[in-house]
Amino acid sequence: MPKSSERHAVIPESHCDILESRCYPMISTLRPDGMLSSNPVSIVWDGDKIRFSTLKDRMKYRNLLADPRIALCAVHPDNPLHYLEVRGRAVLEDDIDRRFVNQIARKYMDVDEYPFDPPGAARVTVTITAEQISTPYMGKVGGPRD
Amino acid sequence: MPKSSERHAVIPESHCDILESRCYPMISTLRPDGMLSSNPVSIVWDGDKIRFSTLKDRMKYRNLLADPRIALCAVHPDNPLHYLEVRGRAVLEDDIDRRFVNQIARKYMDVDEYPFDPPGAARVTVTITAEQISTPYMGKVGGPRD
Repeated sequence: MPKSSERHAVIPESHCDILESRCYPMISTLRPDGMLSSNPVSIVWDGDKIRFSTLKDRMKYRNLLADPRIALCAVHPDNPLHYLEVRGRAVLEDDIDRRFVNQIARKYMDVDEYPFDPPGAARVTVTITAEQISTPYMGKVGGPRD
Repeated sequence: MPKSSERHAVIPESHCDILESRCYPMISTLRPDGMLSSNPVSIVWDGDKIRFSTLKDRMKYRNLLADPRIALCAVHPDNPLHYLEVRGRAVLEDDIDRRFVNQIARKYMDVDEYPFDPPGAARVTVTITAEQISTPYMGKVGGPRD
């Protein structure tokens, strides 16, 4: 596993609109069985860090507990050519008072309390420490994907 | 790295519509520097295998050449709750006659020839051998992401 970089990469202003939107970025994690995994998440960006919420019984939590490496790719909901990739490490913190998951609910659902958890659900907030950021320039090519 | 499984996982019929759509799935790969990467691709699915195209000078090609592990997550363009994840390995083949990248062009652009490559571009077709497939059931929860 590579050493954690001291550098904290900064999101370029040109791509902040993506993180502010109701996008559903994909995260990449490594499973304990050695396979890669890719899953959608809802995020809140506070102008500095990207965060998402998960549950302790989810695979992505177990993956990140065992190996904090993570990548996130966020595409603007209205423009598939406008996206950014963040590569870094995840920091996990219990969300005991559900303050963070309720931020997700406010951003994505316009409600004050996240309504879908079963009783006793153990919420965790995942903060991504960005070490590398890619913002491919798509102005002169056909698309980001081919 | 885990051993390649002999099993060839089959896409459930309930999720074939996603792969037939003009979706832009995200792939996860491992970089030679040890970081994870996540990037959008255009795919063609022939009813058996998922394929995408890349260029030999792209990072995702170099990543997969060094480590064939890959995950792909495809979301239906009209329904963010309807998605599937495929985990497996990538097989790389030169697309010398550009037959495959032109299939991408027909599916996504309604043109017969992929129009955006620079002269001399070296096209590679990536075929995903699916070893594990997840199709989360979202019917009774709020979303796939939280």
